[in-house]
Amino acid sequence: MENYRSFTRISRLCLLPLIVVFTHQNPMQAQSPEKDADAAFIRKIYDQALTDGRCYPWLEHLCLRIGHRLSGSTGAEKAVQWTRSTLDTMGLDSVWLQPCMVPHWERGAPEQVRLTGSKAYGAVQLNALALGGSVGTPAAGISAEVVEVKSWEELDKLNERGIRGKIVFYSRPMDPTKIRTFEAYGGAVDQRVQGASRAAKYGAVAVLVRSMGLRLDDFPHTGSLRYDSAYTLIPAAAISTLAAEKLSRVLKEEGKATVSIKMNCRTLPDAPSFNVIGEIRGSERPGDVIVVGGHLDSWDAGHGAHDDGAGCTQSMDVLRILRRAGYRPRHTVRCVLFMNEENGLRGGKKYAEEAERKGEFHLAAIESDAGGFTPRGFSFDGDEAVFGKFFEKITAYESLFEPYGLRLTKGGSGADIGPLRGMKGLLSGYSPDSQRYFDLHHTADDTFDKVNKRELELGAASMAALVYMLDKYGL
Amino acid sequence: MENYRSFTRISRLCLLPLIVVFTHQNPMQAQSPEKDADAAFIRKIYDQALTDGRCYPWLEHLCLRIGHRLSGSTGAEKAVQWTRSTLDTMGLDSVWLQPCMVPHWERGAPEQVRLTGSKAYGAVQLNALALGGSVGTPAAGISAEVVEVKSWEELDKLNERGIRGKIVFYSRPMDPTKIRTFEAYGGAVDQRVQGASRAAKYGAVAVLVRSMGLRLDDFPHTGSLRYDSAYTLIPAAAISTLAAEKLSRVLKEEGKATVSIKMNCRTLPDAPSFNVIGEIRGSERPGDVIVVGGHLDSWDAGHGAHDDGAGCTQSMDVLRILRRAGYRPRHTVRCVLFMNEENGLRGGKKYAEEAERKGEFHLAAIESDAGGFTPRGFSFDGDEAVFGKFFEKITAYESLFEPYGLRLTKGGSGADIGPLRGMKGLLSGYSPDSQRYFDLHHTADDTFDKVNKRELELGAASMAALVYMLDKYGL
Repeated sequence: MENYRSFTRISRLCLLPLIVVFTHQNPMQAQSPEKDADAAFIRKIYDQALTDGRCYPWLEHLCLRIGHRLSGSTGAEKAVQWTRSTLDTMGLDSVWLQPCMVPHWERGAPEQVRLTGSKAYGAVQLNALALGGSVGTPAAGISAEVVEVKSWEELDKLNERGIRGKIVFYSRPMDPTKIRTFEAYGGAVDQRVQGASRAAKYGAVAVLVRSMGLRLDDFPHTGSLRYDSAYTLIPAAAISTLAAEKLSRVLKEEGKATVSIKMNCRTLPDAPSFNVIGEIRGSERPGDVIVVGGHLDSWDAGHGAHDDGAGCTQSMDVLRILRRAGYRPRHTVRCVLFMNEENGLRGGKKYAEEAERKGEFHLAAIESDAGGFTPRGFSFDGDEAVFGKFFEKITAYESLFEPYGLRLTKGGSGADIGPLRGMKGLLSGYSPDSQRYFDLHHTADDTFDKVNKRELELGAASMAALVYMLDKYGL
Repeated sequence: MENYRSFTRISRLCLLPLIVVFTHQNPMQAQSPEKDADAAFIRKIYDQALTDGRCYPWLEHLCLRIGHRLSGSTGAEKAVQWTRSTLDTMGLDSVWLQPCMVPHWERGAPEQVRLTGSKAYGAVQLNALALGGSVGTPAAGISAEVVEVKSWEELDKLNERGIRGKIVFYSRPMDPTKIRTFEAYGGAVDQRVQGASRAAKYGAVAVLVRSMGLRLDDFPHTGSLRYDSAYTLIPAAAISTLAAEKLSRVLKEEGKATVSIKMNCRTLPDAPSFNVIGEIRGSERPGDVIVVGGHLDSWDAGHGAHDDGAGCTQSMDVLRILRRAGYRPRHTVRCVLFMNEENGLRGGKKYAEEAERKGEFHLAAIESDAGGFTPRGFSFDGDEAVFGKFFEKITAYESLFEPYGLRLTKGGSGADIGPLRGMKGLLSGYSPDSQRYFDLHHTADDTFDKVNKRELELGAASMAALVYMLDKYGL
C-alpha cells in the first residue's frame, strides 16, 4: 500500500502507461546496424574489463588490507572510507556517504562447543560459530543433553517433554541434488533463522545448527537468526558439517550426547554507518536511476571475499568501465555499496527511503550478491501486475548476451534492492555459477584466494553490459 | 581415404542411409510421456551422481596416492593397474588392457634457467619447465643472449643475422579478451609447438616460451613441442608468465639480456603401456559402440588433476552411474582411459586401429579433457559430408539438458577420439567452464584441491545423460 502511494508520487510517470518503459526502442524491430552497434559496444565493455579491469586489485585491497566488515566494526568503517576515496578517484559526477544506523553485534572471544563424555570420542571440540545476533551463554557456559531433529514436525512432536532443558540440534542437510545451490540453501536455512525461538518455545536451553554448506569440511557457517520476542532468547551456533555428522553418529550409536557451549557474543547499541554511493549523472533523464550494487558489510570470518566484496568491487568497476569505454548514460547510473545486508538490511531500507523522499524513479536495480564466480546470467524480478510484460521485452536482447554465456531468466534479485520494489522498476540479480558458493558462504574460508580474476572481471563486464542495454532501451 | 575404406567395411551399415542414425525416434515428434520419461531418467542420473558419485574419491586416489602419470613413468603404470582393478569392481561385462607402445621422455633433474648480469636484477632464477620431448642441454648448460619475438614475421625478419647463436624468447601472450579460453590457447600455442625448430632454422641455440597461461604467476606450463627433423634439435623450455614479464622488461629497459639454461631431459626408447577399457555390452547392438573417455597420462608436474584425471574418473563413473540407475544400454557403452594423449596420442591411435580391425562401428565418442569444472555443454564434431544433419537432430534434445546448464553446440571434440573420425560416428567434447583451466593446465598447480566435488560430479552426470540419449535415440 505504502509502496503504491510512493510510486504515484513520481509525477512525471503518471500519464504514461508503464508498459512502455521498455518499448522506447524494441531491439526485435531494430535495424541490424543498431544491433551490430550494440554487439560491438558490449564487446568493448568486455575487452575493457578483461584487459584493464580494477575489480580484482580492489577486492585484494578490501580483503587483505581491510578484511572482514561486520556492521558496526572498525573493518566496516575502514571499508566505507576506502571505497569512498576509491570512487573519488574515478571522475564520477558525485560520490557521497548516506548515513544509516546499523545493529552492532560482536562475537567476542571465540566460542567453544564441546561434545563431552562420548564413549567413542571422549571429549572433542565441535568447530562452531555463534549465529549472528545470538545472545551469549552465561560465563560458565551451558551444558546439556542434545536432542536431534530434522524437521519442524519432529520438533513439535518432541514438545516440552522431549526438549525442556536440552540443546536442540537441527541437522537437516542442504539437498545436494538441487542443481542451483541457492534452492538447497532455501530448503535448509529456516533451521538457522527460526530454530532458536522455535526450540525456546519448548524450553530448550540452546540450539546447534548443522552449517548451511554442501561440502563436508570443518568450517562452520555463521549467518543471521531471528528471535521471536515471545520466547526466551537462547544461544544459537552453527557447527561444521563434519562436526554435525559426528554428533549425529554419536547420538545414533551411543543413544545420547552431551554438549557444552560457551559463547561470548553480545549486542551493543546501534552504531552509525553508511551506504557508499557514486554516480554518473544521466544526460537525458537525470532523475531516473539505474542502480548497480552489492553489500559492503560481511560476516566476521574470512574476508567476505565472495560475500560480498566481489559484488562491491564489480559494481564500482561497472561505472569505471562505462566511463573508460566513453559511454555517457541517458539515465543516472549509480553504484551503491549497501551497509548491513547480513544482519539487518538497514542500508537497503535507508537507500529506498531516501530515494522515495527525493522522488527518484528507479528504472532498474542490479545486485551482485551471489559470489564472484563465472557468469551464468541474470534473473529478473518485479511487480507482476504492472511490469509483467517487461521480462518478454528484455529477453529480446538475449542473443547479445549469449556469446558471454549469459541467460536471462525470471527469478529473485537481491536483498538490498528489494526495498525498491515499491517503485515498480526492474530488479535484477546477477547470477554467477552457484556450485562453489555454499562451500565458502559465511565461513572463515571465504577468502580472496578463492576468487578468480577473470571470473570476477567477466561478472563486472556482464553487469556493465546490462546497464548499457537498460540505459539505452529503457524509458 | 583409408578412413573411408575402413568405414565401408562395416558391412551392416552399407545399405542404410547414414542420415537415419539419429532418426530412430525423433524427440520433437515423440509423445510428451516419452519426453517426461527421458527427463525423469536424466534427473535420476544427476541424483545418483550427486548423492552417490565415485569420481571424486577416485580422483583423490589417482592424485594423492599415485600422482602424475607421464607416459612411460611408474606413475602411469600404477594408474593403469589401479584404474583397471577399480573398473574390475564395478560388475561390468568386460574390463581389459589394450597394449600400446608410448614415447618415453624423462625430465631428469630439475631444469635451471637463470637471467644473468641484469643491471636491475643481477642474477635471478626464471621458473621454468622443459617442454615435453625437448632435448637436454650439454652438461655445462647453454648461455647466450636472448632475442624476443612475438610473431613468426618478427622471427623471419630477424633471420640468421639476428638469431644465430642466440636464445629465442617467444613472448606473445594468450589473448585475455577471448571469452572461451581455449581460443586464446589456440592463438598462442603455436609458439610452444613449433618454436624450437623454427628458431633452429636460423641458428638459435635454445628457445624459451612464455607459458600458455592467462594468470600472472610463477608456475611454468610445460607441454609438447614438435621438432622438424630438417633442423638441429635445440632445447626448449617454458618460463612462467611472471618470469616472461621480467625478461621482457629487462630486454626493454636494458637493451639486452643473457640467460643460462641447464636441462637434463632425454628421450628413452619407446615403452610398453596400455589403454584401460571397461564396457557394458549392448543388449540390442553389441557391435555398435558408444565411447566415453579421458586420458590417463598427464604431464610430470602437479597431479594432472584437471588434465585429465578428472575426465578419467568421470568416464569411469558414467558406467557406474548408468548401472546403478538400472539402465541396460542397447549399444555397447565403453569407458576408455587413453594413454599418451599429452605427447604422442599413441593410445588414441591404437584404440581406433583396433576398433577398425575388429569392425566395431563407433556410433559416438565423448571425451572429457577440458577440466573438471562446472558444466556448460557439449560440442559436437563429425564428418560434415555424411553427418552434417546430425547436429540439428541432436539439438532437438537440448531442452532436456537445459535444467543442468548445458548447451549443445558445434565445435571440437577431443584429441584421443579424433582417430575415430574415419568411422563417421558422432564425436563430442564435454565442455566445462573454461575460465580457470589455463591457470592450471600443465603446471605443478594442477592439483586435487583445485577440483570441486560437485562440479566434477555434475560433469559425470552430464556425460551419462548424453550417453543415455545417444544410446536410446541413436541407430
